[in-house]
Amino acid sequence: MFTGLSAFPLTPVSDRGIDEEAFAGLVTRLATARVDSITALGSTGSYPYLDRAERARAARLAVEHAGSTPVIVGIGALRTRDVLELAEDAQEAGASGVLLAPVSYQALTADEVFGLYEDVTASLSVPLVVYDNPGTTHFTFTDELYARIAELPHVASIKIPGVQAAAAEQRLAALRALLPPSVTIGVSGDPLAATGLNAGSQAWYSVIAGTLPEPALAITRAAQAGDAATAAAESERLQPLWDLFSRLGSLRVVSAIAEVLGLVGHPNLPLPLRGLPDGERAAVADVVQRLDLR
Amino acid sequence: MFTGLSAFPLTPVSDRGIDEEAFAGLVTRLATARVDSITALGSTGSYPYLDRAERARAARLAVEHAGSTPVIVGIGALRTRDVLELAEDAQEAGASGVLLAPVSYQALTADEVFGLYEDVTASLSVPLVVYDNPGTTHFTFTDELYARIAELPHVASIKIPGVQAAAAEQRLAALRALLPPSVTIGVSGDPLAATGLNAGSQAWYSVIAGTLPEPALAITRAAQAGDAATAAAESERLQPLWDLFSRLGSLRVVSAIAEVLGLVGHPNLPLPLRGLPDGERAAVADVVQRLDLR
Repeated sequence: MFTGLSAFPLTPVSDRGIDEEAFAGLVTRLATARVDSITALGSTGSYPYLDRAERARAARLAVEHAGSTPVIVGIGALRTRDVLELAEDAQEAGASGVLLAPVSYQALTADEVFGLYEDVTASLSVPLVVYDNPGTTHFTFTDELYARIAELPHVASIKIPGVQAAAAEQRLAALRALLPPSVTIGVSGDPLAATGLNAGSQAWYSVIAGTLPEPALAITRAAQAGDAATAAAESERLQPLWDLFSRLGSLRVVSAIAEVLGLVGHPNLPLPLRGLPDGERAAVADVVQRLDLR
Repeated sequence: MFTGLSAFPLTPVSDRGIDEEAFAGLVTRLATARVDSITALGSTGSYPYLDRAERARAARLAVEHAGSTPVIVGIGALRTRDVLELAEDAQEAGASGVLLAPVSYQALTADEVFGLYEDVTASLSVPLVVYDNPGTTHFTFTDELYARIAELPHVASIKIPGVQAAAAEQRLAALRALLPPSVTIGVSGDPLAATGLNAGSQAWYSVIAGTLPEPALAITRAAQAGDAATAAAESERLQPLWDLFSRLGSLRVVSAIAEVLGLVGHPNLPLPLRGLPDGERAAVADVVQRLDLR
């Protein structure tokens, strides 16, 4: 389950709460496209903005509409007590795995982050993905901490930030040597995903796949078949999209893409987050059309 | 109310929730010392780690035990919807003002932060302190954004990060010129508080005052009386404390000081936050004794 393409759908929200119909539609779309797993309530799914009841409901909807595709559910929160409750809710909803980032307000020490994973894995029944997302958590994992956490029970995969092309193979080999064979390494950072997969990453935890599974699958399946050139070329074809990600942030861009494709309404992000201004939405619509994204 | 010394108490927690007796004791201690205001549920009060019911309860306890000292209550949360609910709860609890930081997971744009303050002040009945705490929110205010927000109704004060000695007077004068006269400027960053007060800041939003009101009052009252030398000397006397803040973080240090003084139990921070390791707690206890802090 923790190999291949994991797609992170938006959790569209309106004034009235989660737009359940749109969310179910996104999940169904991903299952139909045959991604390898669906990660509901990742950063793209706005997990820390939702309350416990909303998150339990989204987890249930995801499992219900994913068919036979395994669903991983994000359980991150600032406080360990809340993470433990969210882990229970995710498991009750039928999640096949959970995803946990060290969400921070006060900067956390390495021992505190280890303690969090220790406390959570101690009472878990499903596998866990360690979610290293320094852009949102502002916590920096060391390799030593990865290795310590990877020895904990139920730890199945580590979602690492993107690795730069020049050093990707060495980086992944070094990390591989540190971790138990049972723990997969998955890359995030969509613009560098082809690089990571071609360099030996076993999984891609993908923002774009949550809204546009087809182009993400094209990259993943090529890399998995050993056709590095096709994976790289397909990623290169999407460069205008990666440029938008880098300029406007991946969340706001996929939110606008999903709007343009009629998959979600407007607005669909939890306030204070707002969608892109009109001019930028037009730029996104233009890229969607030029690249024939759908 | 938004001038002088505002003291930020810890909200001590244990496995069983808020340690209400210890919290009430801290608030009473501050009122007895005659600080100018008490800010409950600031960063030192671990506001984002507590749930809505805990925060409403802490707000009530603070007002109840503060006597005639005005109480400001922190209402920050990731989602605007939650901030609005917390604002209602704080006002119902009898808060004289509220404190709001742009808590972030996804990085916020200036327009999103302005929108947050616009939405919250629109339905507020008490004054609001804008809480600029880049160390925890990872959001950087521009002066232009300060000025835009300061024009909103109910905005009474801006809590700015510490200003360095060399440029303090120019910095505060420049900011003063940008803001309506009714909006006070308060400094945070305890080690630079004497510098800020001596350079014209009207308030000190203080971590240390929440646990040790006396030395903070000594600095504040000297600066207010125009005795810059005494304010600076008193702050200099506390240098071993500021060194601990810089090495270990102010929250964990005041948590340990409060333990050493018997004001709170151990542990008293919400997991995954942990108190200092034993060796560091001994270093804190040593400074408490050497400086005769109480």
